[in-house]
Amino acid sequence: MALLVQKFGGTSVADPDRIREVADHVVRCRKRGDQVVLVVSAMGKETDELLRLAKELSSDQPGREMDMLITAGERKAVALVAMALVEAGVPSESYTGSQAGFITDTNHTNAKIVEVKADRIRAAVDAGVVPVVAGAQGVSTDSDVTFLGRGGSDTTAVALARALDADACELYTDVPGVFTTDPRICAQAKKMHRVTFDELLEMTAAGCPKPAMRSVEYAHRHRVPLHVRSAFTWEPGTWVIEEDPDMEAALIRSVTPDLSEAKVTVSGVPDQPGVAAGLFRQLADGDVNVDMIVQNVSEGGVTDISFTVPKSDLSRALGICETVAGSIGAAKVVADDDIAKVSVIGAGMKSNPGVAATMFEVLAANGINIEMISTSAIRISCVIAESDAERAVGLLHDAYELDAADL
Amino acid sequence: MALLVQKFGGTSVADPDRIREVADHVVRCRKRGDQVVLVVSAMGKETDELLRLAKELSSDQPGREMDMLITAGERKAVALVAMALVEAGVPSESYTGSQAGFITDTNHTNAKIVEVKADRIRAAVDAGVVPVVAGAQGVSTDSDVTFLGRGGSDTTAVALARALDADACELYTDVPGVFTTDPRICAQAKKMHRVTFDELLEMTAAGCPKPAMRSVEYAHRHRVPLHVRSAFTWEPGTWVIEEDPDMEAALIRSVTPDLSEAKVTVSGVPDQPGVAAGLFRQLADGDVNVDMIVQNVSEGGVTDISFTVPKSDLSRALGICETVAGSIGAAKVVADDDIAKVSVIGAGMKSNPGVAATMFEVLAANGINIEMISTSAIRISCVIAESDAERAVGLLHDAYELDAADL
Repeated sequence: MALLVQKFGGTSVADPDRIREVADHVVRCRKRGDQVVLVVSAMGKETDELLRLAKELSSDQPGREMDMLITAGERKAVALVAMALVEAGVPSESYTGSQAGFITDTNHTNAKIVEVKADRIRAAVDAGVVPVVAGAQGVSTDSDVTFLGRGGSDTTAVALARALDADACELYTDVPGVFTTDPRICAQAKKMHRVTFDELLEMTAAGCPKPAMRSVEYAHRHRVPLHVRSAFTWEPGTWVIEEDPDMEAALIRSVTPDLSEAKVTVSGVPDQPGVAAGLFRQLADGDVNVDMIVQNVSEGGVTDISFTVPKSDLSRALGICETVAGSIGAAKVVADDDIAKVSVIGAGMKSNPGVAATMFEVLAANGINIEMISTSAIRISCVIAESDAERAVGLLHDAYELDAADL
Repeated sequence: MALLVQKFGGTSVADPDRIREVADHVVRCRKRGDQVVLVVSAMGKETDELLRLAKELSSDQPGREMDMLITAGERKAVALVAMALVEAGVPSESYTGSQAGFITDTNHTNAKIVEVKADRIRAAVDAGVVPVVAGAQGVSTDSDVTFLGRGGSDTTAVALARALDADACELYTDVPGVFTTDPRICAQAKKMHRVTFDELLEMTAAGCPKPAMRSVEYAHRHRVPLHVRSAFTWEPGTWVIEEDPDMEAALIRSVTPDLSEAKVTVSGVPDQPGVAAGLFRQLADGDVNVDMIVQNVSEGGVTDISFTVPKSDLSRALGICETVAGSIGAAKVVADDDIAKVSVIGAGMKSNPGVAATMFEVLAANGINIEMISTSAIRISCVIAESDAERAVGLLHDAYELDAADL
């Protein structure tokens, strides 16, 4: 008998039929003898619809009011899921974030959890009730309603699993687990049975869409076993675990494409101390999320600085760069949003220096030009033309034999 | 400078345009120097949509979960209204029922207010903020979310007005006030400038759709001045006040049609003590809301008992009557749902015995048969054929000269 915290995302509870499937799954888990606590996101596109209404009425969108608005979606979902469970013969009660004991800071729209007082949820579990907890919400130390941000339901689930000392936190989603690459663009993509926290964090950072990075970090820090799996096929998914010496056999475990970024180059920058620092301080103050940074070798006292930003931040970034370029006497600012970042990731590469060379050779042999490179201990990322991305992913997936590996 | 609690119903905040109109109205009130507290219902048909989802997923519809579900609608509305106010330059904050201090009993789907701890709302008002409070909701003494029932937003507004010692409670709706009769079926219907609590209660009981009876009773008991008015034309509406000696001049103030009831007759009932009591106890236990009751004169040891019930309770009432009729040896049970109840109401009729005679004469002179009669101190109701209802309302409105009266 295990205590499981199961998180269901928006697509998993999008309509009454999907909600009934979730209820049936809980019935099966309980028949097997498991105790279950659910964490649920807002139904389908509900959050988007609430954001649309807010946008129509408010240019400022004050954080306190946005949080009151957005969290209404999860309340609706938990009540309906609890009703479906009762209908399926399972005693169940819904809980808001506040009722479930999620105390947060006062940072609206993106609040951080300060404490989880899980007494009420624990009492419900002990009484044989399945609690259904509203994801991504809490109550602030000022008694206001707070939202943990998009993807915050994953964080709610992981934090609750830790507070309850659960045996596992299962993140149910619309894909069957974590893949070696994006199955939509590479037919050879293979589901991994397990992945390390470090690898998953690099994959998430490199553009793998789920689960939310913050929840993976939290689970890693507090050693909560995570299981990423499907709410559509219900098959076992991918376990996210601490690093295992046996896994070093597999050199590369994932090829992760990311089409969401754009590249900015500020060229003719005077090669003086503090110039780069000034630029990136201004960008940070302007809430531009800079990812890769490359500074080319200086020639004749001037240098070029290139970096990538999310496409959604591009126009803001360009505005800031134009201003800074003027003040430091840089020659020009160029943007390119037809780029892709392709990363190869694997805990095993730490002890194998040939990985990067293989990646560069494969791309070069196939006429794919590398515009930028950045690396971490377990990741190598190359920026290439967006039109080459799909081909690069397939070539690298083959080169590292990911479809043949035992993952 | 007055402190006003203003309640806006679902049609008044049905979409972004309507919400902006509410915000503009608040701006005008503040320019005039008034302090304003808003109470808001769920947008448009949102509550109906939530009920539809619950019905699809749950046959039992457990009260605790229903309350969690339904109250999500008001949370969404208050956040959007607060945002619209901020957009219009008015400092504003939204509050759930719980945050606004509404403590209720644990009677889900129809909770009663136990206490209103309005400190947070008062502090907001004192700070120059317009609080926007979610209607019809609170938190129970067991820390669960509770719903005050349909129409509960009126009760929230009145209770908050009392707790804040407000100068008036304004109930904004989609009609300009209380009318002498239903303007949809009688073109002579006239808006009343004022009406007494007793009259409005009789009108509400007799089928006048708004405001919710419970809120009128609460306002009456705690002497909260009520103003029923339009959120579409914004013109002054109808004040609901304590009885005023001057008002006795107006004999009859309203002709109220009610097409929502059906009539049940149990005939051939043995004329013995306790038989009627047994029948109505069974109906009460079966949650059938019996309105008018008439027992005909006994002939030959048997009697007929007729009563009216809401059409929605009719099939349940018939089931109970069939059972009871069998056990007491009554001859038969007959239902008629093609009836209408027409009431004439006025505080002045207490001191004038000719009112009933006039009503009966007008109906008789126009060939309208009276099937049942019931009276209170300030109301006379007749059950007639549904097909005669519209004509009867017009004739009585003319007979009592309501279109000519100064109301």
